[in-house]
Amino acid sequence: MRITRSQLLLLAAIGINFVVLYYVARTQQGLDQGMGPGVPEDGEHRCSRQTSSNVIYEKDLVTFVFREFENFNNMIPKTVSSVLKVFPLAQILIISDKQPYPPLSLDVASSNNIRIVTMGISPNQSQYMSRPENFIKTEYVIFLPDGIEILTSSAVKLMVSKLKSIQGSKQMHHVRLVALKVDAVAESELAACQTLNVDLKQWTLMYSSSGSHICDTVSGTHAVLLRTVDLVTLGYPYARPMQTSLYIQTTLRQWKVALISSSESVSMETAHTDAHSQWKYSNNQHERVTNLYDSFGIKKVVQPTGEIEWYGCKRDTARCFGTIIDDMPEYLYEGRWTPPCCMEHLRETAHYVFRILDSASIRYWLEGGSLLGAARHGDIIPWDYDVDVGMYKDDIAKCPKLADLKDGIPSVDDNGYVWEKATEGDFYRVQYSVSNHMHVDIFPFYTKDGIMTKDSWFKTHRQDTEFPEHYLKPLTKINFAGMQVSAPNNVREFLEFKFGEGVIENPQYPDPEKLKMPQN
Amino acid sequence: MRITRSQLLLLAAIGINFVVLYYVARTQQGLDQGMGPGVPEDGEHRCSRQTSSNVIYEKDLVTFVFREFENFNNMIPKTVSSVLKVFPLAQILIISDKQPYPPLSLDVASSNNIRIVTMGISPNQSQYMSRPENFIKTEYVIFLPDGIEILTSSAVKLMVSKLKSIQGSKQMHHVRLVALKVDAVAESELAACQTLNVDLKQWTLMYSSSGSHICDTVSGTHAVLLRTVDLVTLGYPYARPMQTSLYIQTTLRQWKVALISSSESVSMETAHTDAHSQWKYSNNQHERVTNLYDSFGIKKVVQPTGEIEWYGCKRDTARCFGTIIDDMPEYLYEGRWTPPCCMEHLRETAHYVFRILDSASIRYWLEGGSLLGAARHGDIIPWDYDVDVGMYKDDIAKCPKLADLKDGIPSVDDNGYVWEKATEGDFYRVQYSVSNHMHVDIFPFYTKDGIMTKDSWFKTHRQDTEFPEHYLKPLTKINFAGMQVSAPNNVREFLEFKFGEGVIENPQYPDPEKLKMPQN
Repeated sequence: MRITRSQLLLLAAIGINFVVLYYVARTQQGLDQGMGPGVPEDGEHRCSRQTSSNVIYEKDLVTFVFREFENFNNMIPKTVSSVLKVFPLAQILIISDKQPYPPLSLDVASSNNIRIVTMGISPNQSQYMSRPENFIKTEYVIFLPDGIEILTSSAVKLMVSKLKSIQGSKQMHHVRLVALKVDAVAESELAACQTLNVDLKQWTLMYSSSGSHICDTVSGTHAVLLRTVDLVTLGYPYARPMQTSLYIQTTLRQWKVALISSSESVSMETAHTDAHSQWKYSNNQHERVTNLYDSFGIKKVVQPTGEIEWYGCKRDTARCFGTIIDDMPEYLYEGRWTPPCCMEHLRETAHYVFRILDSASIRYWLEGGSLLGAARHGDIIPWDYDVDVGMYKDDIAKCPKLADLKDGIPSVDDNGYVWEKATEGDFYRVQYSVSNHMHVDIFPFYTKDGIMTKDSWFKTHRQDTEFPEHYLKPLTKINFAGMQVSAPNNVREFLEFKFGEGVIENPQYPDPEKLKMPQN
Repeated sequence: MRITRSQLLLLAAIGINFVVLYYVARTQQGLDQGMGPGVPEDGEHRCSRQTSSNVIYEKDLVTFVFREFENFNNMIPKTVSSVLKVFPLAQILIISDKQPYPPLSLDVASSNNIRIVTMGISPNQSQYMSRPENFIKTEYVIFLPDGIEILTSSAVKLMVSKLKSIQGSKQMHHVRLVALKVDAVAESELAACQTLNVDLKQWTLMYSSSGSHICDTVSGTHAVLLRTVDLVTLGYPYARPMQTSLYIQTTLRQWKVALISSSESVSMETAHTDAHSQWKYSNNQHERVTNLYDSFGIKKVVQPTGEIEWYGCKRDTARCFGTIIDDMPEYLYEGRWTPPCCMEHLRETAHYVFRILDSASIRYWLEGGSLLGAARHGDIIPWDYDVDVGMYKDDIAKCPKLADLKDGIPSVDDNGYVWEKATEGDFYRVQYSVSNHMHVDIFPFYTKDGIMTKDSWFKTHRQDTEFPEHYLKPLTKINFAGMQVSAPNNVREFLEFKFGEGVIENPQYPDPEKLKMPQN
């Protein structure tokens, strides 16, 4: 990895911050007001149980962070005190979206170094208080699951020395996290290394199992250690579910995680033992996953089993992008292509329309961008948002679904698709559903002196133009979105006639002056 | 204002940050990738129109910030270029929740110093990029409304010198903002000084007009200047609507704003000229206000006219606090009392129940905390969440609404109130509505050897106990929530019998061991 001068300066800024913050922290009892209960505010002095070898881990090296726990039912107090038993001077940071209710009953007398950071603050507090990194003073952070029990210090020491030795090696510098297996958990909760592909452009996560102990993401219950400077450069360092969010972001940076086991048993107790608590937990978890994917722009998740989970829009919701301005969808500016759920809906609508047109023996053909996509790779163009079809105007009468439509009055068919004759412009639109407006547009053409023409045109679309009828005599078939679809003959010639030479080989966004397609 | 050592250290940390950030900014072209269109990335050199006297305002002193504009319709490009005409080297910062769509067509060639900061970032970016203060390098920031036109530099210079002179004076150091009137606006949009009372404990804002030109908040269209170090210590420096959010936070810190006029005309053009655009704007604005009050915990807003706006829960929504654990509502831990909307709902429900009990000639009396509140100040205790009533069990038959109830089967009456006989425990509950569970509890007692008793008790409630019937012979009246309500005789003695001596004079939260009432 090349480090640029500006990155070095950034690191310097962060470093200086840490130095100052350290001194701030040492004198900031006065600032603690307003942090709410659970934060020790008195100057209670440290207990003296620690062995000297653990001291370095406690004060300067590692902050133990708890981020994943349920307010309604957790073992944080017990877990914290088990950590303090091994590391009496440990810096402990509990990060919560809002003040936990009911309050955590922490035995704060046992340590001066437990802090709860509430990211949702009151308007009379400073934003400084809402940023957990302002309270991390150590070189490393370790995220611990609620309920973990570390019996000796060796597991934590192993994690730190592993990360140090890995990062010291030239080949392994891309490993920036060390995950520790927890033994005493259910089979399904055993930590496992996985490969993860994060494709933001396609709004997709793809998980697969990994044979290695160095990988992109770790599933199951585990503790994870990383450098504080790495954590704080993430976009969303504390987003929940913590593991999901952390590894998506580290994978995007091509950082790897090493999964290790300790020779000493690291055990785990679950807070959610009864069915009601499990049900509440899994509801909360589902909501958090949904919110995370929403803010990260993830709509399709492929599990290692091949199972696909969708987090996108559905047939009974609005499509997941808004009004398109100047032919340039918003997602293009975000460096993304059409969401995969929308693509699926569009394909489904297109198949439906093709089958109906086929069964009515209508002479139709793929038009514009849709034909271009078919010619390029047999599918919709990856950033397109509708499907265009031409047909012989004379054939409308053969298809009652079209012929019976009145201007501007939509008709919902038995399968939930919405058929409409556009009020302005002489074309038909078939929508995926009443609420989801992914659609196929059908443009009727008629013959005039051997030329196919119509009465209204999209003036800004070069390809929306008259063309010689011979391209339709005969109609051919082309592979499109998994189906053989009617198309003009001499597709390449037809497309270059409409769009210009080289159009198949040189993909461009709809308005290259607004945004050029990135080269990669 | 006393400055503690830790506050000094904090300022030092921020200061060092700024120095480093300045150098980072000068070398960070490489980091700009991923910021999207609108951000100038080339090294185009500064144009040379500036007069030397404006230079200091541009590079080092003031950052011009645009936060309030609508993506669908704005004048940002025009407004920015009008600023650049007067201050060609101005640092310009446009802050947006997400990348503006459609993109702002900024004439970036005209300045190297325009930056769009998008607070909602992609997971492959650093959180550093999402924090506007990381891109402010000047001592002051000025927030400008979209559409403002500053014709000469004098108005801005006046604001800065005003703030400097005010802060130099011992009496005026609490003035930390300077607001500039805009002339050419509609009467209703003229800037005006207002007094603001922010009572977080009561979830309430109270605005009133101010005769002074130094006040808490400024209404109407204006530009506002403050020191960058002040801005960044706010909790939510960029929350929208910017003016509302800014002045709530500065008022909470007891900072004042000075409203000034410039001798030179400062004019204003509105982006929303047509009805549709105005409608969209006011919808968006309403949504932003609602979200702001939600995150700030504001439920009641009293306008200078006396008009009350409610942003709390309604009769047809859930009440605005969740399940109460251990008698201690969540809002107490947040330093707040019962939301005023809930209080209103509770009073309404109580009035309704009292009228029905009165009209059925039922012998009832205020009980527990409700009687205590009546004795203290003639109303519900400010942090209470229900109303308790005792009645003679023999009188149930006189009231069909009670007598006809079956165990655990709720009955909704004609006025939408829900009557229920509790399955466990021998009492009745009247809820505000099916969805809103604010309620009055009615506990039937019977006489046994001159003692009022019942068959089940709340074991943790000291006040839930038997008592001599003579307190009910005769029943008296007490003022409660704006109504004369039936009560025991010798209220003080009755309350001290139930709760203990001095209970009227010594208010406490329900569980003082969990949380003591703050003294102030």
